[in-house]
Amino acid sequence: MTIEKLREVVKEASALMIDNPAEVMQKHGYENIVTSSDINVQEFLKRELARLMPGSAFLCEEADLSDVPDKTDSAFTWIIDPIDGTANYARGLHQCAVSVALAKGPEVVMGAVYLPRTGEMFSAEKGRGAWLNGKPIRVSDRVFADSIMFTALPVYHKEHTAVCAGIIAETFSQCNDVRRLGAAAPELCYVAAGRCELYFEYALSPWDFAAASLIVTEAGGSLLRPDGAPLSPTAPSGVIAANSPQNLDRLLTITKKALRQALGQG
Amino acid sequence: MTIEKLREVVKEASALMIDNPAEVMQKHGYENIVTSSDINVQEFLKRELARLMPGSAFLCEEADLSDVPDKTDSAFTWIIDPIDGTANYARGLHQCAVSVALAKGPEVVMGAVYLPRTGEMFSAEKGRGAWLNGKPIRVSDRVFADSIMFTALPVYHKEHTAVCAGIIAETFSQCNDVRRLGAAAPELCYVAAGRCELYFEYALSPWDFAAASLIVTEAGGSLLRPDGAPLSPTAPSGVIAANSPQNLDRLLTITKKALRQALGQG
Repeated sequence: MTIEKLREVVKEASALMIDNPAEVMQKHGYENIVTSSDINVQEFLKRELARLMPGSAFLCEEADLSDVPDKTDSAFTWIIDPIDGTANYARGLHQCAVSVALAKGPEVVMGAVYLPRTGEMFSAEKGRGAWLNGKPIRVSDRVFADSIMFTALPVYHKEHTAVCAGIIAETFSQCNDVRRLGAAAPELCYVAAGRCELYFEYALSPWDFAAASLIVTEAGGSLLRPDGAPLSPTAPSGVIAANSPQNLDRLLTITKKALRQALGQG
Repeated sequence: MTIEKLREVVKEASALMIDNPAEVMQKHGYENIVTSSDINVQEFLKRELARLMPGSAFLCEEADLSDVPDKTDSAFTWIIDPIDGTANYARGLHQCAVSVALAKGPEVVMGAVYLPRTGEMFSAEKGRGAWLNGKPIRVSDRVFADSIMFTALPVYHKEHTAVCAGIIAETFSQCNDVRRLGAAAPELCYVAAGRCELYFEYALSPWDFAAASLIVTEAGGSLLRPDGAPLSPTAPSGVIAANSPQNLDRLLTITKKALRQALGQG
């Protein structure tokens, strides 16, 4: 497998998203929807990637939709979000992306995040760098006070709104501004590309951040869980990211304190 | 003046934004910046619009930069934000727009909001409708629980963070989700186009919302100040907007209560 081939397959898959009108189905209430495009993109990716790397395993957002087995004994796992930002996609907003990571054991070795509505292909290969449409990208060198944080309120876990709102307000008081686009993978890629500096989300699934996490680290940034533990590309968790170790450390101070307080240990 | 001509001039002005690399200057700290593109776009618009409607007045974000007088006795006023979302523009984010409104006395009669990085031209003419790239647009019919709100924390007035965070968290608990793109005019246009349903910002300048407010009303939506007073296209104020009178009323209930509490009258 090469990064060029992965980009090609991801771009080809995304054509199923823009060319076909999507049918929207609710998974659990208004917040959690799936469209016919999510299913079509995932089916295409599983079929193509299984053909290119026979025996590789799959960890996908829309589970139980394919005849390609999700688990095998392979050392290689594809971690797939067919459409990150499905709500944006269904509403005609630009921030939606196909996200595909290849993990060797517990380590992501390749990743691609493609936004068909903006034509932006973010990708990275372990030890070789990160790119936007083929050009190398790098995190910004902005200090914390000049930083913009991409973040979210917890749409699938509204019971945690207060702790997230507290973290956002505290960070906002120390940085420049905040943004919320509604799609984690593009937001993390924007940290990698130097468009913003900070990222916080309370709870994500591995397919939301697996590919983008490699793009961030290969562009010179770093990521952790909001409690300071290392991130795993195959397990759900919160995510914080920053352009520099200093800024990550300062954001971590804010998230750790808020999490301690939320647990009544503040 | 015709809406076709206005769209043409706005699009022509935006070329100064994408074709010239921008030089960033700070107005007041990290939050308030101006770029050489803001100035170039505004100069071009004032020159062209004064030529097309001799004697018309101007109300512009970047004041005192032009030899065209800002105030005249004319019944017609151009309300201009050369770049709405300057921070996004300077960082390479997509949500930035040229926004131009024409007001006859206190009433906006024409407006155009153009996003050069996405190629989206939103426009409206009083009594004739609202359009995206020439096609009529209409607000969505989503109910409050299925609504997405575009909003912001008060970047120029961080002392008001708590009241805004409270309004956002309360709305979030009743609607589907929130977004924050960092540019008011495109966000209001997204309400008009049915991509989202609700909008709240605590404090805006008239050039942020003058053109977009006509685009929202001509698309079937409605706007008010967060205290329920009518909006003026020539005065600074907060803004709430919604796709339906019912949803605007429900959002107004939230903002009025929060504002009363902030004033200690809760």
